[in-house]
Amino acid sequence: MATRDDLEVKILKLLNAGGGQGLISGGDLSAHLGISRTAVWKHIRALRALGFLIEAIPSRGYRLKKGRKDPFNEVSILSAMGTDLIGRRVYFYDSVPSTNTRAFELGRTGEPEGAVVIADSQTMGKGRLGRSWISPPGVNLYTSVILRPDILPQNAHNLTFLSAVAVAEAVSGFCRKRPTLKWPNDVLIAGRKVSGILLELASEADKVNFVVAGIGVNINTRPGHLPPEIRDTAASIMDSSGSPVSRLRFAVNLYSKIEKWYKIYLRHGFPPVLQAWKGFFDMEGRTVSVHTIGRTIQGRCMGVDSDGSLLVKTASGPVQRIISGDMSGHR
Amino acid sequence: MATRDDLEVKILKLLNAGGGQGLISGGDLSAHLGISRTAVWKHIRALRALGFLIEAIPSRGYRLKKGRKDPFNEVSILSAMGTDLIGRRVYFYDSVPSTNTRAFELGRTGEPEGAVVIADSQTMGKGRLGRSWISPPGVNLYTSVILRPDILPQNAHNLTFLSAVAVAEAVSGFCRKRPTLKWPNDVLIAGRKVSGILLELASEADKVNFVVAGIGVNINTRPGHLPPEIRDTAASIMDSSGSPVSRLRFAVNLYSKIEKWYKIYLRHGFPPVLQAWKGFFDMEGRTVSVHTIGRTIQGRCMGVDSDGSLLVKTASGPVQRIISGDMSGHR
Repeated sequence: MATRDDLEVKILKLLNAGGGQGLISGGDLSAHLGISRTAVWKHIRALRALGFLIEAIPSRGYRLKKGRKDPFNEVSILSAMGTDLIGRRVYFYDSVPSTNTRAFELGRTGEPEGAVVIADSQTMGKGRLGRSWISPPGVNLYTSVILRPDILPQNAHNLTFLSAVAVAEAVSGFCRKRPTLKWPNDVLIAGRKVSGILLELASEADKVNFVVAGIGVNINTRPGHLPPEIRDTAASIMDSSGSPVSRLRFAVNLYSKIEKWYKIYLRHGFPPVLQAWKGFFDMEGRTVSVHTIGRTIQGRCMGVDSDGSLLVKTASGPVQRIISGDMSGHR
Repeated sequence: MATRDDLEVKILKLLNAGGGQGLISGGDLSAHLGISRTAVWKHIRALRALGFLIEAIPSRGYRLKKGRKDPFNEVSILSAMGTDLIGRRVYFYDSVPSTNTRAFELGRTGEPEGAVVIADSQTMGKGRLGRSWISPPGVNLYTSVILRPDILPQNAHNLTFLSAVAVAEAVSGFCRKRPTLKWPNDVLIAGRKVSGILLELASEADKVNFVVAGIGVNINTRPGHLPPEIRDTAASIMDSSGSPVSRLRFAVNLYSKIEKWYKIYLRHGFPPVLQAWKGFFDMEGRTVSVHTIGRTIQGRCMGVDSDGSLLVKTASGPVQRIISGDMSGHR
């Protein structure tokens, strides 16, 4: 049986498709969905409560009006999604401690791959290596995707690069400037961070159980949303686009990029992903510092290895292969 | 403030240490613990309810009597434990779906390393690669240990070998025959499995968050406890020792072995662990079959590599390096 939400998603899709002048009659909706016209009316009311502007024109039907801002919720996302794997299940929350934590719980209890968790805000948003991720409500995207690739744990890092490529491509579509990637997975615009990715995984020693790709994207953050200490290093898509960007459009675009690259990865492995990643990486040849556990390596960035390790040639000679760390670059 | 359980653990330790003739007076207990003699008496009653045989001899004191069977619960385990890291926190359950699942939840919510989960029985005991682990009550050990080593995910497999060595050494102390190890981590006696290990981990792409080492040991299982399909391949320690083995003594011994090897590992890395593991591995030179994802490799076992990978020389020539799989051997 269809759930309430399913029906609302269907009504929204029908309204989006529309008829002449974007109108669809209550009778047509009722026939399409196999529910009474009274039930149609109840669902229209529920959709309005979710922020959708739906006109009811007597004896002609219903019409969806474009508002100043797209509603951003489970129903709007599901009705706009064009993917068949990523986002086939959407868990939307007004607020969670962390979308990664929620997705991890879902992963542990058997949630199939492709499920996504989205939150309007996070109270304990997580960044890499135990850091926090500033997650104000109403402006940005905080999402975590559950994947279950049949890979060894040591290859899970591949998905960090995959996520970075998907985010960079999605960001590209909304910005005047081309984004760049900082190894391994920060997405920058004009040198400032607009997105961070936190990949977490649950595995046996020799088998990945599931991966949670957590993605935070600053979409419409204004400097005032950010604490002073990151105002100089963080940016949002709006800073580059000049006007507010629809979170709905961005999210739907991002999921389609993730799906595209995940399918490429499953079929062709890591090389095409890494090649695309390199197309966004502009630090080769530059002087970089990399902070790793217990030490800092300085030298000339020689690019990345076939497994994604960073290659740095130090002044004293040898090329260091760095699996894990934080890099900063100098022009 | 001391919790009820803490006090009972302390009373039990004092009774174990005993005085002349194993007696300790209520007054001494009261003075040691800083509680009233009435409170002492209440705790003695609680300990009796937990299965401890405690005599109260009028005007002389209390004495702990050795029963036919050691009580197996949180208090008996804590009072017998001689470790300082492993088991400093004990979560004991009569029944859980899976000790690994419970330990994983604890790990996700920040439980420090060294905590152990123990269950008298499991309703959904887990084995490697999605298999189940038969977990009847009252006879065996089902335990999961939380560790937080600062290692890369690709090195987590080291802890599989570490756990196997600890279990093999613990089993050695209770059996007439020396146990052997099947790669990577089954503990066998006379070719039959007495213990299995399921290592699970939560990590970022380049950093282990925590590891759960799940260990199931058939201690006093009789063939009747086991489903027919595994009666020919499974065994218990009792089969080899000839008489029932105290689960308490076995568990305490196992935790001390895990602690010993974990400290060696943190200080000296994987080589000494692997060397000890090889001391229990008797399949080198034998013909083996290894089932890996999608294929079966047959050949002569050439031992294991420095990272624990299995080396198998096939008839057609090359030595295969196998990271993950299930092996079976032929004499």
